[in-house]
Order: sequence, then structure tokens, then C-alpha cells
Amino acid sequence: MPLPLAGLTVLEFSQYLAGPYAGLRLADLGAQVIKIERPQGGDACRKLATKDLWVGDDSLLFHTINRNKKSFCADLKQPADLEHVKQLIAKADVLTHNFRPGVMEKIGLDYASVQQLNPALIYGQVSGYTDTGPWAKKPGQDLLAQSLSGVTWLTGSANDGPVPMGLAIADMLCGTHLAQGILAALVRRKRPGPKQGCGALVEASLLESMVDFQFEGFTTFLNNGRQAPERSTLANAHPLLGAPYGVYKTQDDHVAIAMGSLHTLATAIDCPAIDVSDDHAFTQRESLKQQLQHHLLKNTTAHWLARMRAHNIWCSEVLGYTQLLNHPAFKALDITLTTQRSPGQPIHTTRCPLRINGSNLKSIRPAPLLGQDTDAIREAML
Amino acid sequence: MPLPLAGLTVLEFSQYLAGPYAGLRLADLGAQVIKIERPQGGDACRKLATKDLWVGDDSLLFHTINRNKKSFCADLKQPADLEHVKQLIAKADVLTHNFRPGVMEKIGLDYASVQQLNPALIYGQVSGYTDTGPWAKKPGQDLLAQSLSGVTWLTGSANDGPVPMGLAIADMLCGTHLAQGILAALVRRKRPGPKQGCGALVEASLLESMVDFQFEGFTTFLNNGRQAPERSTLANAHPLLGAPYGVYKTQDDHVAIAMGSLHTLATAIDCPAIDVSDDHAFTQRESLKQQLQHHLLKNTTAHWLARMRAHNIWCSEVLGYTQLLNHPAFKALDITLTTQRSPGQPIHTTRCPLRINGSNLKSIRPAPLLGQDTDAIREAML
Repeated sequence: MPLPLAGLTVLEFSQYLAGPYAGLRLADLGAQVIKIERPQGGDACRKLATKDLWVGDDSLLFHTINRNKKSFCADLKQPADLEHVKQLIAKADVLTHNFRPGVMEKIGLDYASVQQLNPALIYGQVSGYTDTGPWAKKPGQDLLAQSLSGVTWLTGSANDGPVPMGLAIADMLCGTHLAQGILAALVRRKRPGPKQGCGALVEASLLESMVDFQFEGFTTFLNNGRQAPERSTLANAHPLLGAPYGVYKTQDDHVAIAMGSLHTLATAIDCPAIDVSDDHAFTQRESLKQQLQHHLLKNTTAHWLARMRAHNIWCSEVLGYTQLLNHPAFKALDITLTTQRSPGQPIHTTRCPLRINGSNLKSIRPAPLLGQDTDAIREAML
Repeated sequence: MPLPLAGLTVLEFSQYLAGPYAGLRLADLGAQVIKIERPQGGDACRKLATKDLWVGDDSLLFHTINRNKKSFCADLKQPADLEHVKQLIAKADVLTHNFRPGVMEKIGLDYASVQQLNPALIYGQVSGYTDTGPWAKKPGQDLLAQSLSGVTWLTGSANDGPVPMGLAIADMLCGTHLAQGILAALVRRKRPGPKQGCGALVEASLLESMVDFQFEGFTTFLNNGRQAPERSTLANAHPLLGAPYGVYKTQDDHVAIAMGSLHTLATAIDCPAIDVSDDHAFTQRESLKQQLQHHLLKNTTAHWLARMRAHNIWCSEVLGYTQLLNHPAFKALDITLTTQRSPGQPIHTTRCPLRINGSNLKSIRPAPLLGQDTDAIREAML
């Protein structure tokens, strides 16, 4: 069975995470994704190492984000190289880039220009804060986008300062939105009608993705007298939800408890102090959470889970990486895969989270060496 | 210009957030999204209120997630209603549901059965933890999926326990992946070739989405001797990144500083204590962050931002909702919209984060009343 995007070609001028994460998803869904990289170093992510981990000359991070892609080397300042890239654009289905506003215009590869080369092209553009407004030239970086978006005031407790999320949430959300918009434009292009064969400009930004991510929070804010969300001082897990929603300490570990009846919970764990009407779940959130925390410290996670599950309360253990990866439920996901670029250097990573017709998408093609496919692509496409 | 998905019909059996968030994105991209709801109460999200906020008989949350959709009432246990729903399925392009494993089989609307009605249908299925393995029957709820996924150990500081993200990250990521898979399947269905006109089963789960979200972290863990990620005790913003990456207190507020040269930063803010080689950014992370925090408390956010920006250091202020929404940069996004279901009851919310051909997608169709479109849809489609 061919993958859904088999036969489609994506040219990826994007670097770092947001655009290349979209490219990884399109590649796993079957597209041929060709990174267009400058001869001097290529995608800057090749040299961005987290924890100083490298595989060959490239960071492990680069390998993680760019497996299942090809690499074509081109110096866009050289007319001959630029001409080759234009020929590739004429034959491609999708292009993505995350250059700052003005860069593609200067090279002559902005959307208006490439439409002349290929009116059916889907042109995906990533920015930090869109290309207008006072932040258009701010660095489009994940932590800065988080910090500007308000999201740092949702996590942690009321006594904390702003708490950023400990991973690149803005990049990843922006990448998924970009992929979504590109795919929607491809659907339109293929459908009979006045827009058949027609390309599109698809734009996503870190900040808009972060606003959308908080659509519950912003809608509440906008319709509730602009009261800022309030984290609880203890066990905050969502500032808009009342007790018991949160993660609590137990005698030996932790336990997560989602929304549900306080009366049922009080009965299940024998804690009359929290047996109040659910109408008070929000207004008495602080005291209810404090009493619940006090009570849960008296016994173990296993004890509480058994009692809560007997009453169908939504609850769970709280796992770290080691516990999760050793768990049979993780193994049942079949979500890891191993790529290998050089003999003896396997790279263990995770697959596309989707399943199509019951099959996991597990391409094991490794990340490319800089320019490794230049000649083959020239031969096949130019 | 028609929207990319104009003319496509999505039947949404999904409730709560993950599936309906996918439906909202498909609706904003132009699809007709019809919620199939039971006569008794419909989507359970209609009665799930955060902060006890309601508009009419439905929670504000329901309005947020379900604007731009229609509602068709059907009791799937009544043969006549089920027959109508089957007729709709025969004419639809996409179906989504998040019932627990076995429910759709019982009704006779599982993928194998509906393929007989409509071989071109794209069938999107959301679960908590896939339909196999020891967690298949666990409640598919956001906080529980976060707690099982390891993600709670990435945010907050080393002295904290597990810190969940303060919003429904698992639901939202799963919804975006579902939309992505559905759109990829629609692309395949429309392309000439052996799979033209062919439907697909697309599955996404909260847990797989959370694993993918941490692909940098899991890949590092799997290739680095299974060392769990370590949060810093102060200013943690990404456990895999070294100093200065984080959010710091200043004399009057906070400041976010992304990755960059410690030497440049030391010069910019006149803090020789952190002027070490970047090779030590990770190994000396604790002491560097402590010295940096100590130093930044001596002056204001505006002062430090001015000095850092003069050296092109990636930094920003840290905003809350009120500051962000009053900022000209937020207004430039043009990202809010207002729907209205009843006269005098406007609902202010946010739009789709994508732009297509330079236009924001700003449908103002409100969320439907339960069953409000049943008759019109019967007339048009049955």
C-alpha cells in the first residue's frame, strides 16, 4: 500500500525545528523531502547540539528532526546554483522556508516570484510573529515566543514566577499547523473545480500557534471581564479547572487525579474533608487541594490508585522516562525505530505518531549527509 | 477565493477536545463539519464548564471548540436514526470519533463496516493509548496521558515534583495529528493512481502524540545511556539545554534569555562571573544560572533588554494575558474574532492560526444548538 503522500516532492529551505518538523511529518507520510542546504554547513541545526551529543559530524538533534529526508547543496548567491534550484521548484509540489522577512524576496524566491515558475506550488512560510507588526523582526525563537504568549503563567503554582514549558512547544505546534495548511492546500489543488491545479501561500507563526494553543484560556479571558488565569498554590494542572484536578504527592511517589465528583473521591479515599458539592470545586479550590494533599501523603500511590479505580475515578501514576520505556504499555505502542547512517552507529528515535490503515509509519532512512543527494537529484529532476 | 476544503463534509462523532479540535481546524479550512449528537445532551462538552462560564445552555468551552460547525441529532440505538446516519456516512468525506474501543463495532459503524457504505471515506479515530496493550481501556484523559508520558518531569525546577503543563496539551497535539493524517489521506484519495478514490483508517492517540512531542528528549534518552533528563534548580526552560537558556527574575519583573554565547552575554550585561567558554554551558549550568540570576536582580527588565539587544542576544520580556492583549503586536495579529448565537450574546474567541494566500481564516459562524441543523441536513443530504 503506497503511503498517502507518495509521489509528492517537498523542498525544505527551513532550518532548526518548526519547518523541518513539518517536513519530517510529510516525509513519514510518504513525500520525498529534499533539504536545500548551503554548502557551508547546511541547516544550522547540524551544529546545534543538546547535551553535546553528536553522531558523525551532525548533532543528534539534527538526526532526530531530519531522518527520512534527502539533502541537495546549493549556494543561492551563485547564479548557476540558483538556476538549478529554480528548476527544482518548477517540478516540486511544496516548498517551505523560515527565513526572516525579506530574505526570499532578495534571492527572488518569494511567493510572487516562484508562482511564475510553478503556479501549482504550495509555498509554506514560517515566521516568529508574522511579517507585520512591531515584532516582525524579533528573533523567532521558541522560548521567546512562549514568554511573549502568556503561556508561562499557566503552568507551575501561584507562588512561582512564569514557568516555561520544558520543550520547544511553539516550534512543534507551528510545524504541525504548517503541515496541516500545506496538506489542505494540496487537497484543494487536486480537487476538480475552479481551483484545480492551483497553488497557495500558507503561513504559520510561532506566536499565532501559541495563541491558538491557549484558545480555551484566551476565550475565557475575553468573555470573563479579562481576569487573568489563576494557578492554584498547590497541584496546579490547569488554571481554569477546580479541585481535585492535579498531581499530588503520596507517601512514596505521586498520583494524578483528573476532573470528577468530589463526593465520589471523598468516599473512595475516605477523606470526608473534601466531601463538598462540586459547585465549590473552583471557589474552594485552595483549601480542597490542601486537604486532599494532606490526606494523600498518608499512604502509597498503589494504595490510592486501587481505591480510586474501584470507584471509576480518573486517576493514574506519574511516570518518568525510565519507568515509561520499561512499561509493557510503551512496548505495545511499537513507537521506537532505529536508523543507521554509518555502520556501527545506530540511532534510536521515535516514529510518526499516526497509524494509517492499521500500519505504523516507520521509515528507517537516516538523516542525510550535507549534499549527499545533490548529484542523484540533478540527474533525476533537472 | 474558496477555502481549501470547501465542498468536503466531515461527520464528527467525537466529543470533548481532541477530535473536535481537529474538526474545528477542518471547518476553518472550509469543510462542512456536522456534529452527530445524541438527543440527550449531545456532546458531553456542552456541560463541561471551566470556571462555571456558560453561554445559553452550553459551556463557553463548548462554544470555543465547536464554532463553525453544524449539529445533527441521532440516537444511534434507534434503527431509523441509525439508518439516516448511515446515509450521511455514504455521502460524507470524513468521519471522526473518540469512542472507547468496541463501541463503534457494537453500533456497526466501525471502519470495516462503513467501508461497505462508502469505500472512499476517511475514518479518523482518536484514543487515549491505542486500542491494544495494557492501557487500552484506561480513561483517555489529558492529565492522565501527560502523567504517563514522562512530560511532567521536563517542566519546573529540579526541586519540584512532576509539573504538568497547565493546559490540555495531549488533546490538542492529538487533534492536530488527527487532522494531519486525515488531510494526507484526502490528498491520496484525490490523486490519480491506484489509490484514487480510496478511503483510509487514520488513528491518533494521546499517548503517541505525547511521545512524538518529546522526540528530542526520547532520542537523547535512548542514545545517551538512558539518563533521564535533568531540570536545573533555577530558570529551567529545557532540560537538554545549558546556561543561560531560561527565564530569570529582574528587579521589577522577569526576562527570558535563549541560547547564545556566554561571553557575549557577560559583556552585554557586564557580568564577568559567567564569562566562560560555551563548552561549560551544560556542565556548569547550575552555578552559571545562579550567578546570572544574582546579577539580573540588580536592575530592571527594560535595562537588561536594552543592553542585551544592543549585542543581538536573543531575549524578551515575559508577558501575561493582559499585557499581551493590550500590546500593538497582538493587535497586529488580528487573531480575535466574535461569534454570536443569540442577540446580545457575543462570544469573543480566537481564529485558526493559519493564513492562506495572505488571508486570515475568520469564520464567525457560532457553535450550533443541539440538533439545530437536523432538518436542513436531512433535506439536503438524505
